[in-house]
Amino acid sequence: MPTYQAPLADLSFVLDEVLQAGRQPVPGYDQLEPDFTGAVLAEAAKLAEGVLAPLNAVGDRQGCRLENGVVRTPEGFRAAFDEIKAGGWNGLDLPEAYGGQGLPYLLGTAVGEMFVSANMAFNMYQGLTHGAIGTILAHGTEAQKATYLPKMVALDWTGTMNLTEPHAGTDLGIMRTRAEPQPDGSYKITGQKIFISAGEHDLAENIVHLVLAKAPGGGAGTKGISLFIVPKFLVDADGGLGPRNALSCGKIEEKMGIHGNATCVMNYDGATGFLLGELHKGMKAMFTMMNEARLGVGLQGYAVAGAAYQAAAAYARDRLQGRAVTGARNPGGAADPIIVHPDVRRSLMDQKSFVEGARAFTLWGAELIDRAHLAGDAEAEGLISLLTPVIKGFLTDKGFDSAVAAQQVFGGHGYVEEWGMSQFARDARIAMIYEGANGVQALDLVGRKLAAGGGKPVMGFFALVKGAVKDGEGDARLKADFLDPLKAASKDMQAAVEVFMTRGMKDPDAALAGSTDFLHLFGHVCLGLMWARMAKAALAMQDAGRGDPAFLAAKLATGRYYMARHLPATALHLARIRSGADPVMALPAEAF
Amino acid sequence: MPTYQAPLADLSFVLDEVLQAGRQPVPGYDQLEPDFTGAVLAEAAKLAEGVLAPLNAVGDRQGCRLENGVVRTPEGFRAAFDEIKAGGWNGLDLPEAYGGQGLPYLLGTAVGEMFVSANMAFNMYQGLTHGAIGTILAHGTEAQKATYLPKMVALDWTGTMNLTEPHAGTDLGIMRTRAEPQPDGSYKITGQKIFISAGEHDLAENIVHLVLAKAPGGGAGTKGISLFIVPKFLVDADGGLGPRNALSCGKIEEKMGIHGNATCVMNYDGATGFLLGELHKGMKAMFTMMNEARLGVGLQGYAVAGAAYQAAAAYARDRLQGRAVTGARNPGGAADPIIVHPDVRRSLMDQKSFVEGARAFTLWGAELIDRAHLAGDAEAEGLISLLTPVIKGFLTDKGFDSAVAAQQVFGGHGYVEEWGMSQFARDARIAMIYEGANGVQALDLVGRKLAAGGGKPVMGFFALVKGAVKDGEGDARLKADFLDPLKAASKDMQAAVEVFMTRGMKDPDAALAGSTDFLHLFGHVCLGLMWARMAKAALAMQDAGRGDPAFLAAKLATGRYYMARHLPATALHLARIRSGADPVMALPAEAF
Repeated sequence: MPTYQAPLADLSFVLDEVLQAGRQPVPGYDQLEPDFTGAVLAEAAKLAEGVLAPLNAVGDRQGCRLENGVVRTPEGFRAAFDEIKAGGWNGLDLPEAYGGQGLPYLLGTAVGEMFVSANMAFNMYQGLTHGAIGTILAHGTEAQKATYLPKMVALDWTGTMNLTEPHAGTDLGIMRTRAEPQPDGSYKITGQKIFISAGEHDLAENIVHLVLAKAPGGGAGTKGISLFIVPKFLVDADGGLGPRNALSCGKIEEKMGIHGNATCVMNYDGATGFLLGELHKGMKAMFTMMNEARLGVGLQGYAVAGAAYQAAAAYARDRLQGRAVTGARNPGGAADPIIVHPDVRRSLMDQKSFVEGARAFTLWGAELIDRAHLAGDAEAEGLISLLTPVIKGFLTDKGFDSAVAAQQVFGGHGYVEEWGMSQFARDARIAMIYEGANGVQALDLVGRKLAAGGGKPVMGFFALVKGAVKDGEGDARLKADFLDPLKAASKDMQAAVEVFMTRGMKDPDAALAGSTDFLHLFGHVCLGLMWARMAKAALAMQDAGRGDPAFLAAKLATGRYYMARHLPATALHLARIRSGADPVMALPAEAF
Repeated sequence: MPTYQAPLADLSFVLDEVLQAGRQPVPGYDQLEPDFTGAVLAEAAKLAEGVLAPLNAVGDRQGCRLENGVVRTPEGFRAAFDEIKAGGWNGLDLPEAYGGQGLPYLLGTAVGEMFVSANMAFNMYQGLTHGAIGTILAHGTEAQKATYLPKMVALDWTGTMNLTEPHAGTDLGIMRTRAEPQPDGSYKITGQKIFISAGEHDLAENIVHLVLAKAPGGGAGTKGISLFIVPKFLVDADGGLGPRNALSCGKIEEKMGIHGNATCVMNYDGATGFLLGELHKGMKAMFTMMNEARLGVGLQGYAVAGAAYQAAAAYARDRLQGRAVTGARNPGGAADPIIVHPDVRRSLMDQKSFVEGARAFTLWGAELIDRAHLAGDAEAEGLISLLTPVIKGFLTDKGFDSAVAAQQVFGGHGYVEEWGMSQFARDARIAMIYEGANGVQALDLVGRKLAAGGGKPVMGFFALVKGAVKDGEGDARLKADFLDPLKAASKDMQAAVEVFMTRGMKDPDAALAGSTDFLHLFGHVCLGLMWARMAKAALAMQDAGRGDPAFLAAKLATGRYYMARHLPATALHLARIRSGADPVMALPAEAF
């Protein structure tokens, strides 16, 4: 089974040298000095490596069991959950008023990567709770916050998000779950929700379900939807647990992966619910947390790929098979380690250059969220809204590909469950689907985000790229290997935006037919930008004689690889976008 | 669960109109008249749709169980296997002398696609047997043929291939299984083989294992390897079953997919084996069947993708979610079917254009094998040897991607096992690995096949493309949409070959660093060529007023899609190949 080693050096490199977090004018960022963040990350790494990673395969093999309405999580999950609780990890970036530590989301994200790499299915129990907390923080009354948040921040209670119904996934407007107002101001919630992650389990005393439902008088479609707090156990006036609410888990799904997390069918049979936020504005309330939730899923994409990459690299150094084409490297052994073979190395470089680029991109995204939330920076808010579908869609598509590539390094041993590589691929697969399937991310990007704010965010992004190019062009070490390719890729992206601007107005199908290609094109430019920023930081460290020379040399070589071999994909995506809607829409539905 | 509908119209289109099989000067092809092949395919389709497809999910759910050395296959497998036997399907393309029907491999391949689409794991029991039969046919003595072939052709006995050992996969030279010569001319085989598909099961009376082992005096590496027939039950002089041989299944693997097929660890404990072919020439004997075996795996890649595509198309027509951006298409319903959304259609077109192109490519490959074997055509032999790694590697890489894309159309319903889409993705995954992992295919292609015969086969391929272009350029309907893109892609491929020629001699790493990209580049040109040929055939039918107009219109539109949106990938692959070995090989092994 793979062992996990937290990428502490690279996380610190991104936080301290690329983002230079401690020096940013964002409230709370003054705490993010290297010594402090390094100590926090090292503590989290211990937990990830020593407690969560060893349970990853256990969770996959055992899965969750539903017995008389109770879901049993895999062996060891409860003890690990208690360690997470005891360490206060869930509250790291939550307000001190509710028992959190009040640190920036950026640091929480860096910690989150390690937890997800170590055990994605396990981490979802607290991850969903974190999202529910954010929603209550943003929309709850003071009484609601006081009732629910301290318990949830402490992980005594966990949270869920209930959106999907059997016939209503992306299209929530057609949902059927009803909320009937009661004389006491509460609501009776009736309906069935599906795909509810951590909907029922044995890790916490109570589960706080956030449920979308239609209350009378809201009109048709998404406009009629409201958001409700529907706890598994009702809460007494003194904050203790009251009677069991009229809701139950009807089934847990058999899934391709994330077996350790219970994906529940939840039945609400006149369950008592409490309005969260404004009546009939449930969609808006739910969407408040969307940027964070989607960034969290993008993180899953590369975090699982990162763990899979580590295992593949270790295997490639260890497995003896064949001889290097340029002469034996291990003449005393029966064969050379397979890492000598150029195609194995090509695959490892694909994985490494993706994972490190994605890490920087995601942490930059977390910084933008902090800038928006903590510093009220509207430009950052616009930019992260634009980038969110890219982070979610691109990093999960590529993260899955990367996990599959890592599995491939193992040959037949990657296909059998014994080595754990199949689990990485199966787990990573879900991230392309939930929190808005990647096609929906592409639609959101091209159909909404590009034109948002009169196109200011996307213009802002181009200006950022231009600035990075201008800023570094004087350095010959950056120019040819990093900045010229970035400039070319950014040009392709501008050309694609132009295609959408000129054609999209008349023919929305033409824009949407190119939406997934645009999401990927954009993703490559983002990773190119991050590699340019990382290269600049690495060169500056080299020049100053700081840092581990081997780490910095590898960083630069990995970046050059990405720029030479992956960034040119922008031209292919542009060619496809230019081909327009006709090839895509030519067939009548019955011809498929 | 998905229902499977055999693509009879498309199979006939390829056989009759594109390949014009009945008119080819290959012995036996005169039998391949449309009426006859149509009837055979229709019979096979009934079996695939009615018997094999309903067992696909059963096999996945139940898997195989090892009990006291006996492997139990899933419920219903035995009855289905008996139907395959009774219909004589295994012998369709095997010699009449041994009970087969003596039809061309081309027809067997078309039938095979349907069986694999319907139930890949099940079909492996007969598929492996087919490969073993081919090896005995090519290398067995008359006595061996008489002893084993009639029973194997009839599927009373099945066959296996035993190559891999725990420490020796691709690198068979380091295998440890030993063959000790006995006074009676037989050998005692001792060792452990792993990943043996259908190594043990309850479908047949006997299992004929073909086992690679080292006999004394052969020298080191692959040169010392010989091939042996090692039957589960020894065979009497009169052909009846004798005593049980000293071999056993020690374990069956837990795998990501193909659960219905037993992947066995086989222990040989001084088992009696009989030399097959020449002593110390076992590798050569095993490789005789390689082109067919690898084509069979390439077929699995697109056949599973084809079944997944059908399910995705049906779901996309059925599932109501959201509204078309250009106005409601189903105004009476709660929402429009998701097939109205451009990005869903983009995905379905990706799948359809791949599956149909791959089908034509594979059947053309089967024709080349027939030309080589039945007509002794050396040029065809050279060409199929060149194309084999492309068929295997490209079609399984893309086939997996395509199955994953089909799964994605289902959103969350694609991730749960209930709908069967996860199984397609999990099953398709193995085809990228076995019968030579795809990286090894790329190595074979660039390291061996390109230079084989002084480069004559690859020059022959370019001449074929050139001929197709020249031949059709006068037709404006072909030129812009099909032939110009094909010409450009072929130019990219020529440029890539030049890179290998000029750099590869001095620096083999440079060629091999681009090997997977070249395999994909080549694959796109092959599918482009097939689409050009299909378009030509479809236009000829339109001009002659023959065929189903809707089918032909869809065929042309699907081809235009492939040419516009997939063929341009050749430029990206060329750019990567040109970037050479430096970015790939820059890091020391310990930097990963």
